[in-house]
Amino acid sequence: MRRRQLLWGAALAWPAWAQQRFDQAPAPSRPRAPRPPPLSELRLDNGLRVLLAERRGWPLVTAQLQLNLGSLLDPAGKAGLAQLFLDVMTRGAQRGGGGNKGLAADGGDIAFAAESLGASLESQTLAQAATLGLTLATPSLDEGLALLADLARRPTLPASELERSRAQAIDGYRQTLADPAALAQLLGRRLFWGDSAAGQQPTPASLARIRRDDLLNVLRLQLRPELSTLILGGDLDAAQARALAERHFGGWRAPPRVPALLPAPVRARPLAARTLLVDVPGAGQSAVLVLGPHAGLEAGARELGAGLLANAVLGQGYSARLGREVRIKRGLSYGAASQVESLAGGGWMAAYTQTKHDSASEVAKLIAAEIQRLGVEPLGAAELEARRASWLGEQGRRLETSAGLAGLLSEQLLQSREPAALTRLPQELQAVDAAALRAFAARYWRADALRTVVVGDLGAAGPGLRALDPGAWVIRAAELDLASPTLQRRARGR
Amino acid sequence: MRRRQLLWGAALAWPAWAQQRFDQAPAPSRPRAPRPPPLSELRLDNGLRVLLAERRGWPLVTAQLQLNLGSLLDPAGKAGLAQLFLDVMTRGAQRGGGGNKGLAADGGDIAFAAESLGASLESQTLAQAATLGLTLATPSLDEGLALLADLARRPTLPASELERSRAQAIDGYRQTLADPAALAQLLGRRLFWGDSAAGQQPTPASLARIRRDDLLNVLRLQLRPELSTLILGGDLDAAQARALAERHFGGWRAPPRVPALLPAPVRARPLAARTLLVDVPGAGQSAVLVLGPHAGLEAGARELGAGLLANAVLGQGYSARLGREVRIKRGLSYGAASQVESLAGGGWMAAYTQTKHDSASEVAKLIAAEIQRLGVEPLGAAELEARRASWLGEQGRRLETSAGLAGLLSEQLLQSREPAALTRLPQELQAVDAAALRAFAARYWRADALRTVVVGDLGAAGPGLRALDPGAWVIRAAELDLASPTLQRRARGR
Repeated sequence: MRRRQLLWGAALAWPAWAQQRFDQAPAPSRPRAPRPPPLSELRLDNGLRVLLAERRGWPLVTAQLQLNLGSLLDPAGKAGLAQLFLDVMTRGAQRGGGGNKGLAADGGDIAFAAESLGASLESQTLAQAATLGLTLATPSLDEGLALLADLARRPTLPASELERSRAQAIDGYRQTLADPAALAQLLGRRLFWGDSAAGQQPTPASLARIRRDDLLNVLRLQLRPELSTLILGGDLDAAQARALAERHFGGWRAPPRVPALLPAPVRARPLAARTLLVDVPGAGQSAVLVLGPHAGLEAGARELGAGLLANAVLGQGYSARLGREVRIKRGLSYGAASQVESLAGGGWMAAYTQTKHDSASEVAKLIAAEIQRLGVEPLGAAELEARRASWLGEQGRRLETSAGLAGLLSEQLLQSREPAALTRLPQELQAVDAAALRAFAARYWRADALRTVVVGDLGAAGPGLRALDPGAWVIRAAELDLASPTLQRRARGR
Repeated sequence: MRRRQLLWGAALAWPAWAQQRFDQAPAPSRPRAPRPPPLSELRLDNGLRVLLAERRGWPLVTAQLQLNLGSLLDPAGKAGLAQLFLDVMTRGAQRGGGGNKGLAADGGDIAFAAESLGASLESQTLAQAATLGLTLATPSLDEGLALLADLARRPTLPASELERSRAQAIDGYRQTLADPAALAQLLGRRLFWGDSAAGQQPTPASLARIRRDDLLNVLRLQLRPELSTLILGGDLDAAQARALAERHFGGWRAPPRVPALLPAPVRARPLAARTLLVDVPGAGQSAVLVLGPHAGLEAGARELGAGLLANAVLGQGYSARLGREVRIKRGLSYGAASQVESLAGGGWMAAYTQTKHDSASEVAKLIAAEIQRLGVEPLGAAELEARRASWLGEQGRRLETSAGLAGLLSEQLLQSREPAALTRLPQELQAVDAAALRAFAARYWRADALRTVVVGDLGAAGPGLRALDPGAWVIRAAELDLASPTLQRRARGR
């Protein structure tokens, strides 16, 4: 659609206009990197790593435990164990600190304790690790750390809470099957990582196999001080951080003579399909996901920086390329975005949008074309600097808060970088030029490396979607089996 | 379920235990109020109000325009106009500042401009006003304000963008019809406020009636400097704020001899039903919403404080009463919460959860009972202080950021309070005791004042749901007509 033409009589066709605008706009001044926080680091005698990022002047601290609880460690056939463990862990603990000594607390007590401190427990499970944290006013920090320590050191892992968390996870899975957006994300991960540890996905069957003994094994093998990090961000100094860490975590001991369990590097073993079409009759819209490889953590800062910036150009922000092509120019969607994940051994980029069923094939082609274009056409300076500024602006906003600060430190660890690398990250991103970005895209995002997932009402989508790829796998949502290498209950033999 | 009994052999029944736990736990120390920011205020000659909340030490500023663009001003039959106006307003402007002088910018240009400054436009429409803002690094503040000023003062309101925003709103409405959670919220508002201005809800029909002339009317009658406020929160001082406001908004003039349009106080005119059951065959879960009146803004700080705290006790946080009764004790849901809204003329409280269809009637009864219990039973000191601490903790976290600060100032204005009242709010909340909270609940939340909405698969719910209220309205989602006082396409005559 030539919107400018309709409105103001400009006679330029869209692609030319868009390019011209990027190139002719005055280049924004090179964005300034956000000022890094003072960082310090120590280890307790038991091996617990303690990281501090200071942000003085506002009496808040975020305390976050990063635990060796990633989904990559889920045993074969028991996908979902890390997530269940984390859920159950926050629902029962032996209180060891202060006036609570020896009191067994249940989920309600624990939430009540956190909320009485003016905080709420925040937890998440990722591939490599899980985090559990609180953002507290400084006078409540001591009590808050006592609570975190009790959860990590003395979880009671109630069997009833395992059943409840399992039932919730299974309910969630069933709702995912009816939700094109959620289902596409889940299938994308499975398609891309295939039968590697990163491709395992929780299913009702894998969740049903998890026993309380599995939780106890996680506790023994994974939840240990030398495999954990306490991240503190906010209004305190290194001496305070050390004293607090010693008081609450100094007595934490790993069980003797039990070998630790650590994740191994992953290696993508994609499923055989390049295109996956999943039918959800009656779905409101189609979810379209296009996947490409990304650099693994071992690639180093230069290449990862190029990958981050390529992703920012592609799909971070309303005016990034995906939004511009899919939404602004053609009105096929109300939003389109991309994100990346890099693990030890490999990484991926996922570009995502929703659209009407009968536009799904057009949108899938557009997204794939935009991804590949980054490796072919030169990138204008104005566009590059705008995306860099957008990325740096977001970092600056995250650095403003104690929770953002702790989150950034946590991301450094997840990416196997030293905490001090946080201060170098903006400079690394500023060092990426258009040629490096193009080289990254050309290397990773070739046509044969991309994978496409469309989840929607295939009847309403019409034949165009199947024409996208004659070898596409076509599966009804009700027949999906995520544990199978064919993704389907019945044997694939058509 | 007596979880503690199963786990640790405690022999207490639940309700007694819960009460005992609240009363016996050591009362937390009285929470400290978050430190208020330095505030200043001025008016430009054209009537624009400028508010500044200073947060020195981190180079970010949030600039937010609060505009006289609330949905309460939507003309009869054109519900959705304010929201459409705000959407379209951000998609086209005549650029007036600096090197952009006279350049017509479209939605892509505008997003590109914001993202080049490392920011992104944030907008929302409420009943009384709309906000439009950016969070910027201080070196970008001048350019950011130029962009906001162009959007507010020189919007081009492109007809094509009206069509696109309209189509998006109609798509969104259709998706709402299939989503129990979203539909329950929308119906609750309609049921509670009825045929008052606050009860009008956008529908495909009302959206279809909106013409570009309606947008131009909004521009003339509502979008005027003397009806607008520029809120600045972050790293700048009063002199800088004045200079920036003068530069970008000093020349803004209201059209001469055109009377301004302002919202009138609302008065709830609830629909005739006490209970509304909406059938969405095949829905995943049932949404349950119980509504009660809340104090209007005219009630004053004491009563509003009691209402806020009553809401915190009821439904703010995992361990608040709704979560405890519905989720922790009975495992009927994965979360339950409540929120309040107070307008000039009246207010409401909405308690909400999702559950299995066959638990919907039990959950609706539980929630109504919890609401009424607040007006009957005495509240223990430990519970009261815990909820107060939780509320104050959240305020403290919001005060940490420039965006949170601007948002809190904006809320003060929406509640017709002077900005300085922001600094009194924690003290007002600390002054609320258990008796005041109980008096509030007893006054507002009597059984006959409550209203219930359940949206789910009524076939799967079984007969218990209909037994909840023999006079309930039962409507199929496909037959809903939000413009009708019977909420139904066909005449009500059963």
